[in-house]
Amino acid sequence: MRKPKRKSKLKIIPLGGLSEIGKNMMALEYENDIMVIDAGLMFPGEEMLGIDLVIPDISYLLENKEKVRGIVITHGHEDHIGALPYLLPQLNVPVYSTRLPHGLISVKLKERKALEGAKLNSVDYGQPISLGRFRVELFPVCHSIPDAAGLIINTPIGTIVHSGDFKLDYTPVHGKPTDLSRLARLGAQGVLLLLSDSTYSELPGYTPSERIVGETLDRVMADAPGRVIVTTFSSLVSRIQQVIDAAAKHNRRVFVVGRSMTDIVKMTLELGYLKAPNGILANIDELKKMPPNRVVLVTTGSQGEPTSALVRIANRDHRHVHIIKGDTVVLSATAVPGNEALINRTVDALFKQGAQVLYDKVAKVHVHGHGSQEELKLLLNLVRPRFFIPVHGEYRHLSLHAQLAESVGIPKSNIFVLEDGDILELGPNGGKVTGKVSSGNVYVDGLSVGDIGSVVLRDRRMLSRDGVVMVVITVNRQTGKLVGRPDIISRGFVEPGETKDMIDKSRDLVAKTLDHSGVRPAEWGYINAKVRDILNKFYYDQTKRRPMILPVMVKV
Amino acid sequence: MRKPKRKSKLKIIPLGGLSEIGKNMMALEYENDIMVIDAGLMFPGEEMLGIDLVIPDISYLLENKEKVRGIVITHGHEDHIGALPYLLPQLNVPVYSTRLPHGLISVKLKERKALEGAKLNSVDYGQPISLGRFRVELFPVCHSIPDAAGLIINTPIGTIVHSGDFKLDYTPVHGKPTDLSRLARLGAQGVLLLLSDSTYSELPGYTPSERIVGETLDRVMADAPGRVIVTTFSSLVSRIQQVIDAAAKHNRRVFVVGRSMTDIVKMTLELGYLKAPNGILANIDELKKMPPNRVVLVTTGSQGEPTSALVRIANRDHRHVHIIKGDTVVLSATAVPGNEALINRTVDALFKQGAQVLYDKVAKVHVHGHGSQEELKLLLNLVRPRFFIPVHGEYRHLSLHAQLAESVGIPKSNIFVLEDGDILELGPNGGKVTGKVSSGNVYVDGLSVGDIGSVVLRDRRMLSRDGVVMVVITVNRQTGKLVGRPDIISRGFVEPGETKDMIDKSRDLVAKTLDHSGVRPAEWGYINAKVRDILNKFYYDQTKRRPMILPVMVKV
Repeated sequence: MRKPKRKSKLKIIPLGGLSEIGKNMMALEYENDIMVIDAGLMFPGEEMLGIDLVIPDISYLLENKEKVRGIVITHGHEDHIGALPYLLPQLNVPVYSTRLPHGLISVKLKERKALEGAKLNSVDYGQPISLGRFRVELFPVCHSIPDAAGLIINTPIGTIVHSGDFKLDYTPVHGKPTDLSRLARLGAQGVLLLLSDSTYSELPGYTPSERIVGETLDRVMADAPGRVIVTTFSSLVSRIQQVIDAAAKHNRRVFVVGRSMTDIVKMTLELGYLKAPNGILANIDELKKMPPNRVVLVTTGSQGEPTSALVRIANRDHRHVHIIKGDTVVLSATAVPGNEALINRTVDALFKQGAQVLYDKVAKVHVHGHGSQEELKLLLNLVRPRFFIPVHGEYRHLSLHAQLAESVGIPKSNIFVLEDGDILELGPNGGKVTGKVSSGNVYVDGLSVGDIGSVVLRDRRMLSRDGVVMVVITVNRQTGKLVGRPDIISRGFVEPGETKDMIDKSRDLVAKTLDHSGVRPAEWGYINAKVRDILNKFYYDQTKRRPMILPVMVKV
Repeated sequence: MRKPKRKSKLKIIPLGGLSEIGKNMMALEYENDIMVIDAGLMFPGEEMLGIDLVIPDISYLLENKEKVRGIVITHGHEDHIGALPYLLPQLNVPVYSTRLPHGLISVKLKERKALEGAKLNSVDYGQPISLGRFRVELFPVCHSIPDAAGLIINTPIGTIVHSGDFKLDYTPVHGKPTDLSRLARLGAQGVLLLLSDSTYSELPGYTPSERIVGETLDRVMADAPGRVIVTTFSSLVSRIQQVIDAAAKHNRRVFVVGRSMTDIVKMTLELGYLKAPNGILANIDELKKMPPNRVVLVTTGSQGEPTSALVRIANRDHRHVHIIKGDTVVLSATAVPGNEALINRTVDALFKQGAQVLYDKVAKVHVHGHGSQEELKLLLNLVRPRFFIPVHGEYRHLSLHAQLAESVGIPKSNIFVLEDGDILELGPNGGKVTGKVSSGNVYVDGLSVGDIGSVVLRDRRMLSRDGVVMVVITVNRQTGKLVGRPDIISRGFVEPGETKDMIDKSRDLVAKTLDHSGVRPAEWGYINAKVRDILNKFYYDQTKRRPMILPVMVKV
C-alpha cells in the first residue's frame, strides 16, 4: 500500500511592510503558484538622504517569474500600490483590485509611462479570482479610502483571511462597513490563518467613527465668523464628502484649491464616490465676490509639504488665497511620522497670519483609518483562525498584536511574528521559518531604481555633517615633485572668508608633507591617505569638525 | 508747578524660547538695569546639519554689558542653563539659582573649563536678590526636576510673576508643590504682569500627578517575572526615586548602568535629593549572582541615543548587560521631538531580543512636567495679572495660551504674544512693541560658536541630497589650452563602479566644451559657470539628480 501523498506546505513570504511601516507586499506560494498581495512604496526616512522613494526588493519574484500568477491589491493608498510603476515593467503579471484603486493605479502608471501593456483588472467584492491553486475573493473593509478590501484566499491546505488595512466603523461616511457577518461565517467553518493589520496595535480601545469628525466640521462651519479652510489628504475622499455636506448644510460654497486636490475631486465625482449638490462647488474666480462666512476652501498641505496650497497660503505666497481676519483653518489629518516639524511650522505661520487653527491636538478634526486593540481582538474572535500572523507594522506593533492574539486564546506556538524576507512554511498542523529571501529597501533616487547603495548614503551622511574639503595637488610627472602650492576648496565645512588663515595654514601643511620627497606614482595611495590623515587631524584640532577630505593628484 | 516726573517704561525682551521651544532666555530692562532670566540651549533641528547645539543671540546684552546686573535661573534643565558655559566667558555677571541647578551649572562650567571666575550664587526660595532696581524672589514650583522655581520680581512699575516651567502636582515625589497660596496673596495685592509656561497649552485638562507613574512602577516590579530595566532622563531625579522606592518594596536591588546616570545618582544622593535605603544600590559585579526577579536596572537611553546603555543593551553591544528571557523594559520618558525614529528602533530591537517593553503609548510609565490647559487657567485666575505674556513655546503654543487668558477674562489688548527679539515697552496702563533686537539661533559646531551661518548650512543641505562632483581642469598657463583630460571625482552622487561610463562621458563633455578655445585667466569665472551648467544639465538628464559641482582649474 502506498502512503497517501503528503500535501505540500504553503509558503508565506513577507517582502515589505513587516520591518518598517509602508511598502507593503507579501507573497504566498504553493507548489508552482505564487500570488502577491499589494505592491506599496515607502517615503524615505530622515537618514535616507536625497532618496525619493523606497520600494520592496522583488528579486525573489523575478527569480520565480514563471510562477507568479498575479497581484491582488487591497486598496488605493501609496503604501499598497506605489511600487507598481517600478515593478510591472519587470514583472508584467495581472493586477486585480476594486474600482477606485484600479482608477488610481491607471493614473499612476500613465504618469510613469508604464500603463501600456499592463494587465489591470477591476473586480467586485465577492467576485472570484483564480491565481493557480489560489482562489481569491475580496470583501469590504472600512478604511480611510473608499473601495478598501480584505482577502479571503482558498488554498489547498485551508482558508486564509487577510484583513487589508481596516477599522470597524459602523457608521462610515463611505461604502460598506467591514463585513463582519461574512467573517463570522467563515470563522465558524474554520479558518486556517488570519493575517491582520497591526498599524495601531499600540492603541487601547476602539478607533472613533468618522462621524465624530463630521460633527466637528458641522460645528466649525456653523460657528466660524469667516471662511473655513480645510486641509486633508487628497485620497481621504470621505473627509472631502464630509466637508461638502457640512458646507451645504450651513449655506457655504466649496472652493477646491491645489492641483492634486482638484484632480482627485474631479475623478471621484465622475466615478460617483463623491457627491456634491448642484452649485455648491465654486470656481476660484468667484472667491472674491463671496462673503467670507459663506466660503469653504479645501486644500492639500496637511503634511506641511512646501509646495502645497496650504503652505503657500500660510507663507502669503499663494496666487489666489491669503489669510484674512476671521479665517478658521482645519488640519483634518495626522502627521505622517517625520513630518511633525514641517506641520508645526505651518500651524505657527497660520496663527501668525491671524487665523484660528484647529488641529488634532486641540480638536476632534481627524480619526485614523486603522483598528485599535479592541477591534483587532474582535476580528480575531470572529475569524477564530488556527494560525495568526500580524502584518503591516514595525516589530513592536507585530509583537503587541501577537500578545493580543495570545490574550484571546490563540496558542503562542500558532502565532508567527515574521520579518521581511522570512519564509514561513505552513501546514495544517504547524509552521516554521525555513529560510530567508532577499528583502529590504530598494531606493528610487531620480531616474534610477536600486542603484543607490550603502556607499552613496554613507557619503551623503558624512557630507551633510561637516562638509567637504578638496585638496588639489599638482606634481611633476617625471620628478614627482610638487608643482606650485596645493589648492584647497571647501564647502559646508567653515564659513568662507572668516577662515582664510586656517585654510592657508592647511595648504602649507600639505606642501610641507609632500615637499621633502618626490611622489612616485606607486605611492599615490599612500600619499592620498597621508594627506587625509594630516588634514583630518589639523582640522579636527582647529574646529572639532571632520569634513570629508578628497585629495586629487594632477600629474603634469 | 512742575509736572511729576513720568515713570520710565519697563522693557521686556525675549531673547530665546518664544519662537522655538528651547534656549530660553529673557531680558528685563528698566532704565540702567537689565536682569536676565535663564540662559538655555536648544538641540539642533533636523535641518541644522552637523550642528551640535544652538544658543541664543546675546549681542543685545553684550552691547549693554554695563547694565546687566545678573542672571536668574529657574531650574537646572539644559534649555534653561545650557548656554551659560558659552555666555559667561563673554558676560561675566552673577548667576543666581537654587541649590540643585547651582550644582549642575558648576559641573557644566567645569567641563567647559569656564568655572574659574564665574560668580555663581546659590539662593533659597524666598531669599531676596537685588539686581539694580529689580528685587527678585524665587518661589517653589513643581516640575520634572527638583528645586525648580518661579520668580516674583518687584519693579518700579509693579510686580511681575514668572512661572518658570511648572505644573500643579499636589502629590509630587520631590520637594514642595507649586506655592499657590503665595501666588493667591500676590494676586490679591495686585500683579502687573504674569509670564507663564506655554509648553503644553495644547493639551486640555490637567497633567496627571507623578504618583500615577509610581503606581505603574509598583505594579511592574511586583508582576515582572524577571528583571526590570527602567530607562529615563538622568535629570528626572524624582523618577529615579520612584524606581528605588518600588524596588525596595518588592525586594529588588537596583543597579545603576551608564556613566551619566551613575554620576547624577551619586551627586543627588550626596546632596540629599535622592534617598536610598541601605544596601539597595548594588554594584554591577553582583548582577550575575542575583536571581532575575530581584533585579532592577536603571539606565539612560530613553531618547534612543546611539551610545547610551539602553541602546547598547538592545543591540547586544553592552559589556555587562544583555536581554534575557523574562526581562521587562520600561521607557519612562516621552520622545523629545525629532527622536521618535531612534526610540522606535530601540523598542523594536528590545522586542526582537524577547523583552516585554512598556512605553508611553502602551502604559502609564511617564507624565510630563508642564501644566495643561486647566492648570494654566488656574494660575491665571490666582495671579489675576493686569497684563499677560505667554512664554516658553512656539507661536501656536503662545497663541493658544493667549486664547486661554482671554477666556478667563484678561482683555485681549492686555495680552502680548511676542517673538524672540521683540522689545515690549510696558507701563502701568499699557504696552506696545517698539522695536526689535538682534535675536535668533547661534550655532555651536565643534569648537566654534557662532561662525556657522547660512552658507555652510545651505551647502551641507545640498551635499546631503545628491552629493558632490569635483571637476579638475588642468590648463597651460600661457596658452590657456587644456592639458590632458579633465578629472572627475564624485562622492554621494552615484554608486561607484556602476556608473563609470556616465562619468567618462561627462569628462569628454567638459573637454569638448573647453577644447576649442584657450582659457584666458579673465574668463575663469565664466568657464567655471559654464562647466557647472553643462554638467548640471548632463547629470540631471542622466539621473534626475543635482549634485553640487565644484570645478577647480589648475594652471601649469
